[in-house]
Amino acid sequence: MELGPPGGAGPAEPGPRLRGLRGDDRAASAAWLSEASAGRRAPSVAAVLPAGGSGERMGVPTPKQFCPVLERPLISYTLQALERVCWIKDIVVAVTGENMEVMKGIVQRYQHKRISLVEAGVTRHRSIFNGLKALAEDQPNSKLCRPEVVIIHDAVRPFVEEDVLLKVAIAAKEHGAAGAIRPLVSTVISPSADGCLDHSLERASHRASEMPQAFLFDVIYEAYQQCSDYDLEFGTECLQLALKYCHTKAKLVEGSPDLWKVTYKRDLYAAESIIKERISQQICILMDAKEDEEHVGRCLEEMLKKELNHVKVTSGALCHAGRDLQQIILEQCYNFVCVNVMTSDFEETRKLLNALEESNLSILYPVVVISVHFLDYKLVPFGQKMEHLMQIKEFAKEVKKRNILLCGLLIYYPQLWRQDMGTLEVRVYVRPHTTQPAYCC
Amino acid sequence: MELGPPGGAGPAEPGPRLRGLRGDDRAASAAWLSEASAGRRAPSVAAVLPAGGSGERMGVPTPKQFCPVLERPLISYTLQALERVCWIKDIVVAVTGENMEVMKGIVQRYQHKRISLVEAGVTRHRSIFNGLKALAEDQPNSKLCRPEVVIIHDAVRPFVEEDVLLKVAIAAKEHGAAGAIRPLVSTVISPSADGCLDHSLERASHRASEMPQAFLFDVIYEAYQQCSDYDLEFGTECLQLALKYCHTKAKLVEGSPDLWKVTYKRDLYAAESIIKERISQQICILMDAKEDEEHVGRCLEEMLKKELNHVKVTSGALCHAGRDLQQIILEQCYNFVCVNVMTSDFEETRKLLNALEESNLSILYPVVVISVHFLDYKLVPFGQKMEHLMQIKEFAKEVKKRNILLCGLLIYYPQLWRQDMGTLEVRVYVRPHTTQPAYCC
Repeated sequence: MELGPPGGAGPAEPGPRLRGLRGDDRAASAAWLSEASAGRRAPSVAAVLPAGGSGERMGVPTPKQFCPVLERPLISYTLQALERVCWIKDIVVAVTGENMEVMKGIVQRYQHKRISLVEAGVTRHRSIFNGLKALAEDQPNSKLCRPEVVIIHDAVRPFVEEDVLLKVAIAAKEHGAAGAIRPLVSTVISPSADGCLDHSLERASHRASEMPQAFLFDVIYEAYQQCSDYDLEFGTECLQLALKYCHTKAKLVEGSPDLWKVTYKRDLYAAESIIKERISQQICILMDAKEDEEHVGRCLEEMLKKELNHVKVTSGALCHAGRDLQQIILEQCYNFVCVNVMTSDFEETRKLLNALEESNLSILYPVVVISVHFLDYKLVPFGQKMEHLMQIKEFAKEVKKRNILLCGLLIYYPQLWRQDMGTLEVRVYVRPHTTQPAYCC
Repeated sequence: MELGPPGGAGPAEPGPRLRGLRGDDRAASAAWLSEASAGRRAPSVAAVLPAGGSGERMGVPTPKQFCPVLERPLISYTLQALERVCWIKDIVVAVTGENMEVMKGIVQRYQHKRISLVEAGVTRHRSIFNGLKALAEDQPNSKLCRPEVVIIHDAVRPFVEEDVLLKVAIAAKEHGAAGAIRPLVSTVISPSADGCLDHSLERASHRASEMPQAFLFDVIYEAYQQCSDYDLEFGTECLQLALKYCHTKAKLVEGSPDLWKVTYKRDLYAAESIIKERISQQICILMDAKEDEEHVGRCLEEMLKKELNHVKVTSGALCHAGRDLQQIILEQCYNFVCVNVMTSDFEETRKLLNALEESNLSILYPVVVISVHFLDYKLVPFGQKMEHLMQIKEFAKEVKKRNILLCGLLIYYPQLWRQDMGTLEVRVYVRPHTTQPAYCC
């Protein structure tokens, strides 16, 4: 059975993809990947994502998988993490009837690929079973193919990396079942009936069972078909079903801390901070090639480099910098500073915004653009400058609809110019995604 | 044995203090509190805080209890949570020799009360034992008194509330030992020697053992004196020691999600977001009683009320609003907007800053002050206005040293005035603690 088409954002390069794999694992993975990229013989893999939960532990009315993180529902990040893995052919998401339209809207808006939606059951196990049934081809009119290996993941674990998906898939192919584990953070205890401590478990000899897990499709499908109503109602652990009904002992794979499950409101805060941190690591400074701006740009670059991993500076009017800019956009940079010292209009920033809109970069993450203007009120009347800048405000409203956050910044020129504009810049620009957009005219 | 003096910030009122307690618990707590406030017969309580950990799971070189959250070390938040509980007489913190000076500095800088420092051991249990020894009065020159009940808590659980401390202390008095528990988030499994699943535990019949825990001092001290080197080296669970060596079955008390332990970097992000959320709920708007400013102030108030729980508006020049302001500071409001429409100078803001500095409000949390100035360049030359405002920048540098973040905001007046200044304000001001301070002149 052949592998499907690659995902939208494309797979990572083999280097990072195999990050954390060693020895035999690395050899097995390399073989798998080379087969996968040749499009032949590699086992076909699908994923099932139960997303029917109510999120009652979150203490908010919205089920946690639909809670917004940087204005995008959490589940969309998880889908993004799965669909960029090219060897996962189908992603089956189980959602409740009442959220079906919401989910369809999410798939459409964020342009997710290879997604099939099925109706969730009333429990997690029933939702997974529905997902497996859809893949088993015993549903009429199903377009899905029965995979050799199926990955089961949670909708609320958005930071799953390709390497752990690969590890569990490879281990499942060999052992029939596999799952990610983590060390326990707290000691686990067993209470007695009167609410007192009966005994505590030795922490070192137990692990937390996390997701993703993977199975030979025939193993887990058989287990679900055999298992009791009690299991479907009250069980939570897929590995246990494979053990109980198919005598398949799952291989346990050490996962990274990133696999944690978004459970409480604080986890949403953490998820948002992690995403902000990631998309704030790169910043691109655009400026005219004029001497003054070069000075500002280099000055900014020096300072930002101390705090960020990547700072790119593109000189020359935007029409000349177009190719550079395309490359930067391709590398998924979400932060731009457009420095205008001498130009009194808004034309350069407008060109940048047009390029960003054409690129669709802002579909998944907000893009921050800071348009910097300098003022020497002795040369240009303040009122005239201000009228130019008021256009930014109107334009910001427009581009906000397309997830581009435009901030205009007018800086008083003569005093700050060569002296301590450094301090000013760093405060305002560093990690734009951690600041609210503001018009400061 | 009498209770010590109340803590710095004072205890909460009995209402919230007993939040979450019901029936018998409430009656027992009420009795405890009434005895405590009468200063007689109530059991004396001390707390031990092991803080010798290296924080290796965090992936940063600084031990996690010393990691900054809003620029203050995490452990200081935990100390604050304990010291505001008036019936905890002594707080013994165990820190490693190499961090002793750092810890002394923290206690001094944040004015923590009733703290004693002891040397940590090489393991958590040895650190706790050292803390207990200090309380047992068998150390020469110790100023500490042997308490009847001792609470053990983690330095990295900063959000502990008085009600759970009270619950475990009361339960310890009755049962000899007590500890907070939480439902398991993940299924716990037991691996076999070959790294495969041996069996999984039923999630419903197990709990995560969290902190705080409390013990009759004699019980836990006896347990530590009896226990083996193996226990001291490899054990983690104090409740287990009380069970094993003193046959004391701990009472288990359901804790809130807030009790979670800061373990990974994402937990620091979550902690920071929770604290920002808390200190951003109140905002105070100060303005002159002039008609125009009233309009701006009311306008702001209306908008902010939609997003925040508490918005206070104080009218009249600051000298008249002084009493109001004192009350607001006492209620621990950390966000101030000082609106100056007609005044062209910085005098009102300076008065506010003086009042804030005198109050010591900014010792524990950053205070944000936004000084808003309006400009009609047809009436006042821009250059003149700008020179006034440049003073803000100098002043901001000064007050930053005292943890007051001053932002100056100059708003172009005629166009924004009655039309859509609403949008402008909300963007800039709402949740000032979630934005970086910026000078936007």
